[in-house]
Amino acid sequence: MSEYWNLMKFSIEAIAVVHSCYSEKFGIPRQPGLVKSAIGSIEMLPPYDREEMFRELDQFSHIWLQFRFHESMGDGWRPTVRPPWLGGQKRVGLFASRSPHRPNGLGMSVVRYHGLRMEKNKLLLDISEMDILQGTPVFDIKPYVPYSDKVEEASSGFVKFAEKEITVCFSSEAEEQCQQYREETGREMKILIAEILKQDPRPASQRGKKREYGMLLWEMNVRWLAEDQTFTVFSIQHRH
Amino acid sequence: MSEYWNLMKFSIEAIAVVHSCYSEKFGIPRQPGLVKSAIGSIEMLPPYDREEMFRELDQFSHIWLQFRFHESMGDGWRPTVRPPWLGGQKRVGLFASRSPHRPNGLGMSVVRYHGLRMEKNKLLLDISEMDILQGTPVFDIKPYVPYSDKVEEASSGFVKFAEKEITVCFSSEAEEQCQQYREETGREMKILIAEILKQDPRPASQRGKKREYGMLLWEMNVRWLAEDQTFTVFSIQHRH
Repeated sequence: MSEYWNLMKFSIEAIAVVHSCYSEKFGIPRQPGLVKSAIGSIEMLPPYDREEMFRELDQFSHIWLQFRFHESMGDGWRPTVRPPWLGGQKRVGLFASRSPHRPNGLGMSVVRYHGLRMEKNKLLLDISEMDILQGTPVFDIKPYVPYSDKVEEASSGFVKFAEKEITVCFSSEAEEQCQQYREETGREMKILIAEILKQDPRPASQRGKKREYGMLLWEMNVRWLAEDQTFTVFSIQHRH
Repeated sequence: MSEYWNLMKFSIEAIAVVHSCYSEKFGIPRQPGLVKSAIGSIEMLPPYDREEMFRELDQFSHIWLQFRFHESMGDGWRPTVRPPWLGGQKRVGLFASRSPHRPNGLGMSVVRYHGLRMEKNKLLLDISEMDILQGTPVFDIKPYVPYSDKVEEASSGFVKFAEKEITVCFSSEAEEQCQQYREETGREMKILIAEILKQDPRPASQRGKKREYGMLLWEMNVRWLAEDQTFTVFSIQHRH
Protein backbone atom coordinates (compact mmCIF):
# COMPACT_ATOMS: atom_id res chain seq x y z
CA MET A 1 0.00 0.00 0.00
CA SER A 2 2.64 2.53 1.02
CA GLU A 3 4.52 1.67 -2.16
CA TYR A 4 1.49 2.62 -4.19
CA TRP A 5 1.36 6.01 -2.51
CA ASN A 6 5.03 6.54 -3.18
CA LEU A 7 4.01 6.59 -6.81
CA MET A 8 1.75 9.52 -5.98
CA LYS A 9 4.49 12.13 -6.20
CA PHE A 10 4.75 14.05 -9.41
CA SER A 11 7.00 16.61 -10.92
CA ILE A 12 5.35 19.51 -12.72
CA GLU A 13 6.91 22.48 -14.41
CA ALA A 14 5.88 26.02 -15.18
CA ILE A 15 4.64 26.51 -18.74
CA ALA A 16 4.36 30.27 -18.26
CA VAL A 17 4.97 33.09 -15.84
CA VAL A 18 2.64 35.93 -14.85
CA HIS A 19 3.43 39.62 -15.29
CA SER A 20 1.11 41.47 -12.96
CA CYS A 21 0.41 44.94 -11.65
CA TYR A 22 0.54 43.27 -8.22
CA SER A 23 4.21 43.37 -7.30
CA GLU A 24 3.54 42.14 -3.78
CA LYS A 25 0.83 40.18 -1.99
CA PHE A 26 -0.64 43.03 0.02
CA GLY A 27 -3.35 44.73 -2.00
CA ILE A 28 -4.34 41.73 -4.12
CA PRO A 29 -8.14 41.39 -4.05
CA ARG A 30 -9.63 38.27 -2.49
CA GLN A 31 -11.28 37.21 -5.72
CA PRO A 32 -10.59 37.78 -9.38
CA GLY A 33 -13.12 39.86 -11.29
CA LEU A 34 -13.41 42.61 -8.68
CA VAL A 35 -10.67 44.91 -9.90
CA LYS A 36 -11.49 45.41 -13.58
CA SER A 37 -8.37 47.45 -14.33
CA ALA A 38 -5.97 44.92 -12.83
CA ILE A 39 -4.14 44.10 -16.02
CA GLY A 40 -1.21 41.89 -16.80
CA SER A 41 0.09 39.29 -19.16
CA ILE A 42 1.16 35.68 -19.24
CA GLU A 43 4.54 35.00 -20.78
CA MET A 44 4.68 31.54 -22.32
CA LEU A 45 7.88 29.59 -21.79
CA PRO A 46 9.39 27.39 -24.50
CA PRO A 47 8.25 24.96 -25.87
CA TYR A 48 4.77 26.28 -25.06
CA ASP A 49 5.28 29.62 -26.80
CA ARG A 50 3.72 28.49 -30.08
CA GLU A 51 0.79 30.47 -31.40
CA GLU A 52 -0.97 27.39 -32.72
CA MET A 53 -1.39 26.11 -29.16
CA PHE A 54 -3.89 28.96 -28.64
CA ARG A 55 -5.80 28.65 -31.90
CA GLU A 56 -9.46 29.65 -31.34
CA LEU A 57 -8.86 30.64 -27.72
CA ASP A 58 -10.20 34.06 -28.72
CA GLN A 59 -13.62 32.41 -28.90
CA PHE A 60 -13.61 32.54 -25.11
CA SER A 61 -14.00 35.66 -22.97
CA HIS A 62 -12.35 34.11 -19.90
CA ILE A 63 -9.62 31.60 -19.13
CA TRP A 64 -8.58 29.54 -16.12
CA LEU A 65 -5.06 29.75 -14.82
CA GLN A 66 -3.70 26.97 -12.65
CA PHE A 67 -0.70 28.23 -10.76
CA ARG A 68 1.48 28.02 -7.69
CA PHE A 69 1.01 30.38 -4.75
CA HIS A 70 4.78 30.67 -4.86
CA GLU A 71 5.17 33.32 -2.17
CA SER A 72 2.88 31.55 0.28
CA MET A 73 4.62 28.19 0.12
CA GLY A 74 7.16 28.87 2.84
CA ASP A 75 4.44 29.41 5.42
CA GLY A 76 3.12 25.85 5.37
CA TRP A 77 -0.54 25.10 6.02
CA ARG A 78 -2.88 24.67 8.97
CA PRO A 79 -5.94 22.38 9.07
CA THR A 80 -8.32 25.31 9.59
CA VAL A 81 -8.31 28.94 8.43
CA ARG A 82 -10.34 32.15 8.84
CA PRO A 83 -11.27 33.29 5.34
CA PRO A 84 -11.46 37.08 4.79
CA TRP A 85 -14.79 36.83 2.97
CA LEU A 86 -16.31 35.62 6.24
CA GLY A 87 -14.94 38.72 7.93
CA GLY A 88 -11.89 36.94 9.33
CA GLN A 89 -13.92 35.67 12.30
CA LYS A 90 -15.26 32.25 11.44
CA ARG A 91 -12.88 29.31 11.34
CA VAL A 92 -13.42 26.75 8.57
CA GLY A 93 -11.52 23.73 7.29
CA LEU A 94 -8.68 24.44 4.88
CA PHE A 95 -10.44 22.44 2.15
CA ALA A 96 -13.59 24.52 2.71
CA SER A 97 -11.54 27.61 1.81
CA ARG A 98 -9.56 29.03 -1.08
CA SER A 99 -6.64 29.96 1.18
CA PRO A 100 -3.23 30.07 -0.57
CA HIS A 101 -1.67 28.20 2.36
CA ARG A 102 -2.55 24.69 1.26
CA PRO A 103 -0.87 21.36 0.49
CA ASN A 104 0.76 21.59 -2.96
CA GLY A 105 0.08 25.36 -3.02
CA LEU A 106 -2.07 25.12 -6.14
CA GLY A 107 -4.24 28.07 -7.07
CA MET A 108 -6.84 28.46 -9.76
CA SER A 109 -8.28 31.69 -10.96
CA VAL A 110 -10.50 32.83 -13.79
CA VAL A 111 -9.37 35.98 -15.62
CA ARG A 112 -10.55 37.91 -18.63
CA TYR A 113 -8.66 37.11 -21.81
CA HIS A 114 -7.76 39.83 -24.34
CA GLY A 115 -5.65 38.02 -26.90
CA LEU A 116 -2.14 37.03 -27.91
CA ARG A 117 0.77 39.19 -28.93
CA MET A 118 4.47 38.81 -29.68
CA GLU A 119 6.89 41.16 -27.96
CA LYS A 120 10.66 40.83 -28.20
CA ASN A 121 10.29 37.28 -29.43
CA LYS A 122 8.06 36.33 -26.53
CA LEU A 123 4.51 35.11 -26.78
CA LEU A 124 2.26 36.99 -24.36
CA LEU A 125 -1.40 36.57 -23.44
CA ASP A 126 -3.02 39.80 -22.27
CA ILE A 127 -5.38 39.42 -19.32
CA SER A 128 -7.31 41.58 -16.89
CA GLU A 129 -9.49 41.32 -13.76
CA MET A 130 -6.69 39.27 -12.29
CA ASP A 131 -5.75 38.54 -8.67
CA ILE A 132 -2.33 36.98 -9.21
CA LEU A 133 1.09 38.05 -8.02
CA GLN A 134 3.97 39.15 -10.26
CA GLY A 135 6.23 36.22 -11.14
CA THR A 136 3.68 33.50 -10.41
CA PRO A 137 4.50 30.22 -12.17
CA VAL A 138 1.60 28.89 -14.27
CA PHE A 139 1.07 25.16 -14.81
CA ASP A 140 -1.91 25.21 -17.11
CA ILE A 141 -4.19 27.47 -19.12
CA LYS A 142 -7.71 26.31 -19.99
CA PRO A 143 -10.72 28.01 -21.52
CA TYR A 144 -13.55 28.91 -19.13
CA VAL A 145 -16.34 26.85 -20.65
CA PRO A 146 -19.66 28.32 -19.43
CA TYR A 147 -21.45 25.09 -20.34
CA SER A 148 -19.63 23.14 -17.63
CA ASP A 149 -17.90 25.72 -15.40
CA LYS A 150 -20.89 27.98 -14.77
CA VAL A 151 -22.82 25.65 -12.48
CA GLU A 152 -26.28 27.17 -12.31
CA GLU A 153 -27.46 25.08 -9.39
CA ALA A 154 -24.32 25.58 -7.28
CA SER A 155 -24.97 27.10 -3.90
CA SER A 156 -23.08 28.23 -0.86
CA GLY A 157 -24.69 28.46 2.54
CA PHE A 158 -22.29 31.18 3.58
CA VAL A 159 -23.45 34.73 3.38
CA LYS A 160 -20.57 36.84 2.22
CA PHE A 161 -19.28 39.20 4.88
CA ALA A 162 -20.66 42.64 4.03
CA GLU A 163 -17.72 44.99 3.73
CA LYS A 164 -18.41 48.56 4.70
CA GLU A 165 -18.07 50.98 1.82
CA ILE A 166 -14.64 52.58 1.50
CA THR A 167 -14.22 56.20 0.38
CA VAL A 168 -10.99 56.75 -1.57
CA CYS A 169 -9.45 60.23 -1.85
CA PHE A 170 -6.23 61.38 -3.52
CA SER A 171 -4.04 64.23 -2.32
CA SER A 172 -3.29 66.73 -5.08
CA GLU A 173 0.31 65.48 -5.09
CA ALA A 174 -0.85 61.89 -5.54
CA GLU A 175 -3.21 62.98 -8.32
CA GLU A 176 -0.30 64.56 -10.09
CA GLN A 177 1.93 61.51 -9.66
CA CYS A 178 -0.79 59.27 -11.15
CA GLN A 179 -1.13 61.64 -14.07
CA GLN A 180 2.61 61.65 -14.65
CA TYR A 181 2.80 57.85 -14.43
CA ARG A 182 0.03 57.54 -16.98
CA GLU A 183 1.88 59.82 -19.36
CA GLU A 184 5.02 57.72 -19.01
CA THR A 185 3.46 54.24 -19.22
CA GLY A 186 -0.10 54.54 -20.50
CA ARG A 187 -1.31 52.79 -17.33
CA GLU A 188 -4.42 54.06 -15.55
CA MET A 189 -2.82 54.10 -12.11
CA LYS A 190 -5.47 56.19 -10.40
CA ILE A 191 -8.34 53.95 -11.44
CA LEU A 192 -6.36 50.87 -10.46
CA ILE A 193 -5.56 52.23 -6.99
CA ALA A 194 -9.16 53.31 -6.41
CA GLU A 195 -10.53 49.89 -7.43
CA ILE A 196 -8.07 48.03 -5.22
CA LEU A 197 -8.64 50.21 -2.16
CA LYS A 198 -12.43 49.91 -2.54
CA GLN A 199 -11.89 46.21 -1.73
CA ASP A 200 -10.29 47.15 1.60
CA PRO A 201 -7.04 45.17 1.69
CA ARG A 202 -6.59 45.64 5.46
CA PRO A 203 -6.62 42.55 7.66
CA ALA A 204 -9.94 42.40 9.55
CA SER A 205 -8.12 42.90 12.85
CA GLN A 206 -6.77 46.32 11.85
CA ARG A 207 -9.98 47.84 10.59
CA GLY A 208 -10.77 50.08 13.55
CA LYS A 209 -7.34 51.72 13.64
CA LYS A 210 -5.91 54.84 12.02
CA ARG A 211 -2.85 53.66 10.14
CA GLU A 212 -0.64 54.21 7.13
CA TYR A 213 -0.30 51.50 4.51
CA GLY A 214 1.81 50.94 1.45
CA MET A 215 1.53 48.60 -1.51
CA LEU A 216 3.64 48.01 -4.57
CA LEU A 217 1.86 48.32 -7.94
CA TRP A 218 4.13 47.69 -10.87
CA GLU A 219 7.32 49.48 -9.75
CA MET A 220 5.48 52.17 -7.80
CA ASN A 221 5.13 52.39 -4.06
CA VAL A 222 1.63 53.60 -3.24
CA ARG A 223 0.99 55.00 0.23
CA TRP A 224 -2.26 55.92 1.90
CA LEU A 225 -3.72 56.80 5.27
CA ALA A 226 -6.63 54.70 6.46
CA GLU A 227 -8.95 56.25 8.99
CA ASP A 228 -12.09 54.25 9.54
CA GLN A 229 -13.66 53.83 6.11
CA THR A 230 -11.83 56.72 4.42
CA PHE A 231 -8.54 56.09 2.64
CA THR A 232 -6.42 59.05 1.53
CA VAL A 233 -3.73 58.25 -1.02
CA PHE A 234 -0.87 60.68 -0.47
CA SER A 235 2.13 59.34 -2.36
CA ILE A 236 2.97 57.30 -5.48
CA GLN A 237 6.71 56.97 -5.94
CA HIS A 238 9.26 54.78 -7.67
CA ARG A 239 10.48 52.16 -5.26
CA HIS A 240 14.12 53.13 -5.77
CA MET B 1 17.53 33.49 -17.32
CA SER B 2 17.63 29.74 -17.90
CA GLU B 3 18.67 29.30 -14.28
CA TYR B 4 15.52 31.08 -13.21
CA TRP B 5 13.39 28.67 -15.22
CA ASN B 6 15.18 25.73 -13.71
CA LEU B 7 13.59 26.83 -10.48
CA MET B 8 10.23 26.42 -12.15
CA LYS B 9 10.00 22.66 -11.50
CA PHE B 10 7.95 21.56 -8.56
CA SER B 11 7.13 18.36 -6.83
CA ILE B 12 3.51 17.79 -5.88
CA GLU B 13 1.91 14.84 -4.20
CA ALA B 14 -1.52 13.29 -4.12
CA ILE B 15 -3.59 14.26 -1.09
CA ALA B 16 -6.37 11.86 -2.06
CA VAL B 17 -7.41 9.22 -4.54
CA VAL B 18 -10.69 8.87 -6.43
CA HIS B 19 -12.97 5.85 -6.22
CA SER B 20 -15.19 6.02 -9.26
CA CYS B 21 -17.83 4.04 -11.11
CA TYR B 22 -15.65 4.67 -14.17
CA SER B 23 -13.13 1.82 -14.11
CA GLU B 24 -11.75 2.74 -17.52
CA LYS B 25 -11.57 5.84 -19.70
CA PHE B 26 -14.07 4.74 -22.35
CA GLY B 27 -17.55 5.80 -21.32
CA ILE B 28 -16.54 8.78 -19.19
CA PRO B 29 -18.69 11.76 -20.20
CA ARG B 30 -16.97 14.77 -21.72
CA GLN B 31 -18.11 17.08 -18.94
CA PRO B 32 -19.03 16.62 -15.32
CA GLY B 33 -22.66 17.27 -14.37
CA LEU B 34 -24.14 15.30 -17.28
CA VAL B 35 -24.38 11.88 -15.67
CA LYS B 36 -26.22 12.57 -12.42
CA SER B 37 -25.93 9.03 -11.13
CA ALA B 38 -22.16 8.81 -11.64
CA ILE B 39 -21.24 8.39 -8.01
CA GLY B 40 -17.98 7.85 -6.25
CA SER B 41 -15.87 8.94 -3.35
CA ILE B 42 -12.59 10.62 -2.57
CA GLU B 43 -10.35 8.81 -0.14
CA MET B 44 -8.15 11.23 1.78
CA LEU B 45 -4.56 10.16 2.33
CA PRO B 46 -2.69 10.89 5.56
CA PRO B 47 -2.02 13.53 6.87
CA TYR B 48 -4.99 15.04 5.02
CA ASP B 49 -7.54 12.60 6.45
CA ARG B 50 -8.56 14.89 9.30
CA GLU B 51 -12.21 15.82 9.58
CA GLU B 52 -11.44 19.35 10.75
CA MET B 53 -9.84 20.11 7.37
CA PHE B 54 -13.37 19.94 5.90
CA ARG B 55 -15.22 21.90 8.57
CA GLU B 56 -18.13 23.81 6.97
CA LEU B 57 -17.53 22.30 3.54
CA ASP B 58 -21.11 21.06 3.74
CA GLN B 59 -22.14 24.69 3.23
CA PHE B 60 -21.25 24.16 -0.43
CA SER B 61 -23.20 22.08 -2.94
CA HIS B 62 -20.22 21.58 -5.27
CA ILE B 63 -16.47 21.20 -5.01
CA TRP B 64 -13.53 21.51 -7.38
CA LEU B 65 -11.10 18.65 -7.74
CA GLN B 66 -7.65 19.31 -9.14
CA PHE B 67 -6.17 16.06 -10.31
CA ARG B 68 -3.82 14.25 -12.67
CA PHE B 69 -5.08 12.65 -15.89
CA HIS B 70 -2.92 9.73 -14.82
CA GLU B 71 -3.88 7.34 -17.62
CA SER B 72 -3.42 9.93 -20.36
CA MET B 73 0.08 10.96 -19.38
CA GLY B 74 1.91 8.33 -21.40
CA ASP B 75 0.46 9.65 -24.64
CA GLY B 76 2.19 13.04 -24.53
CA TRP B 77 0.59 16.13 -26.02
CA ARG B 78 0.16 17.77 -29.40
CA PRO B 79 -0.09 21.52 -30.03
CA THR B 80 -3.60 21.20 -31.47
CA VAL B 81 -6.53 18.88 -30.79
CA ARG B 82 -10.04 18.13 -32.08
CA PRO B 83 -12.38 18.42 -29.11
CA PRO B 84 -15.39 16.06 -29.07
CA TRP B 85 -17.81 18.86 -28.16
CA LEU B 86 -17.05 20.40 -31.54
CA GLY B 87 -17.99 17.12 -33.16
CA GLY B 88 -14.39 15.94 -33.51
CA GLN B 89 -13.99 17.95 -36.72
CA LYS B 90 -12.58 21.33 -35.87
CA ARG B 91 -8.94 21.62 -34.82
CA VAL B 92 -8.16 24.05 -32.01
CA GLY B 93 -5.10 24.87 -29.92
CA LEU B 94 -4.44 22.61 -26.96
CA PHE B 95 -4.81 25.55 -24.56
CA ALA B 96 -8.17 26.37 -26.16
CA SER B 97 -9.35 22.89 -25.12
CA ARG B 98 -9.87 20.84 -21.98
CA SER B 99 -8.10 17.81 -23.51
CA PRO B 100 -6.47 15.47 -20.98
CA HIS B 101 -3.36 15.27 -23.15
CA ARG B 102 -1.65 18.41 -21.91
CA PRO B 103 1.63 19.53 -20.36
CA ASN B 104 1.61 18.59 -16.65
CA GLY B 105 -1.56 16.54 -17.21
CA LEU B 106 -3.58 18.62 -14.76
CA GLY B 107 -7.34 18.31 -14.78
CA MET B 108 -9.97 20.24 -12.90
CA SER B 109 -13.55 19.24 -12.51
CA VAL B 110 -16.53 20.41 -10.50
CA VAL B 111 -18.57 17.66 -8.83
CA ARG B 112 -21.51 17.56 -6.46
CA TYR B 113 -20.55 17.08 -2.82
CA HIS B 114 -22.60 14.88 -0.50
CA GLY B 115 -20.61 14.88 2.73
CA LEU B 116 -17.93 13.10 4.72
CA ARG B 117 -17.91 9.66 6.22
CA MET B 118 -15.49 7.31 7.92
CA GLU B 119 -15.19 3.77 6.63
CA LYS B 120 -12.62 1.29 7.87
CA ASN B 121 -10.58 4.09 9.40
CA LYS B 122 -10.56 6.01 6.14
CA LEU B 123 -12.00 9.46 5.61
CA LEU B 124 -14.17 9.53 2.47
CA LEU B 125 -15.96 12.37 0.67
CA ASP B 126 -19.02 11.22 -1.23
CA ILE B 127 -19.48 12.86 -4.62
CA SER B 128 -21.66 12.52 -7.71
CA GLU B 129 -22.03 13.93 -11.24
CA MET B 130 -18.38 13.09 -11.68
CA ASP B 131 -16.32 12.50 -14.81
CA ILE B 132 -13.15 11.13 -13.24
CA LEU B 133 -11.44 7.78 -13.61
CA GLN B 134 -10.99 5.20 -10.83
CA GLY B 135 -7.64 5.64 -9.08
CA THR B 136 -7.10 9.25 -10.13
CA PRO B 137 -4.67 11.09 -7.85
CA VAL B 138 -6.08 14.33 -6.44
CA PHE B 139 -3.86 17.31 -5.62
CA ASP B 140 -6.39 19.71 -4.20
CA ILE B 141 -10.01 20.07 -3.14
CA LYS B 142 -11.62 23.49 -3.08
CA PRO B 143 -15.19 24.71 -2.58
CA TYR B 144 -17.01 25.89 -5.72
CA VAL B 145 -17.69 29.49 -4.74
CA PRO B 146 -20.55 30.76 -6.95
CA TYR B 147 -19.60 34.35 -6.18
CA SER B 148 -16.30 34.04 -8.06
CA ASP B 149 -16.51 30.77 -10.07
CA LYS B 150 -19.89 31.35 -11.71
CA VAL B 151 -18.82 34.06 -14.13
CA GLU B 152 -22.08 35.52 -15.37
CA GLU B 153 -20.57 37.47 -18.25
CA ALA B 154 -18.37 34.61 -19.50
CA SER B 155 -19.01 33.65 -23.09
CA SER B 156 -17.84 31.14 -25.63
CA GLY B 157 -18.14 31.77 -29.34
CA PHE B 158 -18.32 28.06 -30.02
CA VAL B 159 -21.68 26.52 -30.52
CA LYS B 160 -21.68 23.13 -28.90
CA PHE B 161 -21.88 20.30 -31.39
CA ALA B 162 -25.48 19.08 -31.33
CA GLU B 163 -25.39 15.38 -30.56
CA LYS B 164 -28.18 13.36 -32.10
CA GLU B 165 -30.48 11.83 -29.52
CA ILE B 166 -29.55 8.28 -28.51
CA THR B 167 -32.19 5.67 -27.74
CA VAL B 168 -31.04 3.17 -25.10
CA CYS B 169 -32.67 -0.28 -24.84
CA PHE B 170 -31.89 -3.20 -22.53
CA SER B 171 -32.28 -6.86 -23.42
CA SER B 172 -34.34 -8.77 -20.86
CA GLU B 173 -31.16 -10.55 -19.78
CA ALA B 174 -29.37 -7.23 -19.25
CA GLU B 175 -32.39 -5.91 -17.31
CA GLU B 176 -32.16 -8.90 -15.03
CA GLN B 177 -28.41 -8.50 -14.53
CA CYS B 178 -28.90 -4.84 -13.57
CA GLN B 179 -31.59 -5.86 -11.13
CA GLN B 180 -29.37 -8.50 -9.59
CA TYR B 181 -26.43 -6.10 -9.33
CA ARG B 182 -28.63 -3.60 -7.57
CA GLU B 183 -29.72 -6.19 -5.06
CA GLU B 184 -26.10 -7.11 -4.36
CA THR B 185 -24.63 -3.61 -4.15
CA GLY B 186 -27.45 -1.07 -3.89
CA ARG B 187 -26.11 0.63 -7.01
CA GLU B 188 -28.54 1.83 -9.68
CA MET B 189 -26.66 0.25 -12.56
CA LYS B 190 -29.42 0.55 -15.13
CA ILE B 191 -29.89 4.29 -14.63
CA LEU B 192 -26.13 4.81 -14.69
CA ILE B 193 -25.71 2.91 -17.97
CA ALA B 194 -28.63 4.74 -19.59
CA GLU B 195 -27.29 8.16 -18.57
CA ILE B 196 -23.79 7.36 -19.82
CA LEU B 197 -24.93 5.95 -23.16
CA LYS B 198 -27.22 8.96 -23.76
CA GLN B 199 -23.97 10.97 -23.97
CA ASP B 200 -22.79 8.78 -26.85
CA PRO B 201 -19.26 7.75 -25.84
CA ARG B 202 -18.35 6.67 -29.39
CA PRO B 203 -15.54 8.51 -31.18
CA ALA B 204 -17.05 10.82 -33.81
CA SER B 205 -15.42 8.77 -36.59
CA GLN B 206 -17.31 5.58 -35.65
CA ARG B 207 -20.78 7.05 -35.44
CA GLY B 208 -22.14 5.76 -38.74
CA LYS B 209 -21.13 2.14 -38.13
CA LYS B 210 -22.91 -0.81 -36.57
CA ARG B 211 -20.60 -2.04 -33.85
CA GLU B 212 -20.35 -3.64 -30.46
CA TYR B 213 -18.86 -1.76 -27.54
CA GLY B 214 -17.90 -2.56 -23.99
CA MET B 215 -17.14 -0.44 -20.96
CA LEU B 216 -16.16 -1.23 -17.40
CA LEU B 217 -18.40 0.25 -14.68
CA TRP B 218 -17.25 -0.65 -11.20
CA GLU B 219 -16.24 -4.29 -11.65
CA MET B 220 -18.86 -4.99 -14.32
CA ASN B 221 -18.26 -5.33 -18.02
CA VAL B 222 -21.17 -3.68 -19.84
CA ARG B 223 -21.69 -4.58 -23.49
CA TRP B 224 -24.00 -3.01 -26.05
CA LEU B 225 -24.70 -2.95 -29.76
CA ALA B 226 -24.69 0.45 -31.42
CA GLU B 227 -26.66 0.78 -34.62
CA ASP B 228 -27.05 4.36 -35.73
CA GLN B 229 -28.63 6.17 -32.80
CA THR B 230 -30.00 3.09 -31.05
CA PHE B 231 -27.92 1.32 -28.41
CA THR B 232 -29.00 -2.07 -27.13
CA VAL B 233 -27.37 -3.19 -23.89
CA PHE B 234 -27.19 -6.97 -23.94
CA SER B 235 -24.80 -8.03 -21.20
CA ILE B 236 -23.57 -6.89 -17.77
CA GLN B 237 -21.10 -9.34 -16.32
CA HIS B 238 -18.33 -9.52 -13.76
CA ARG B 239 -15.03 -8.92 -15.47
CA HIS B 240 -13.53 -12.15 -14.13
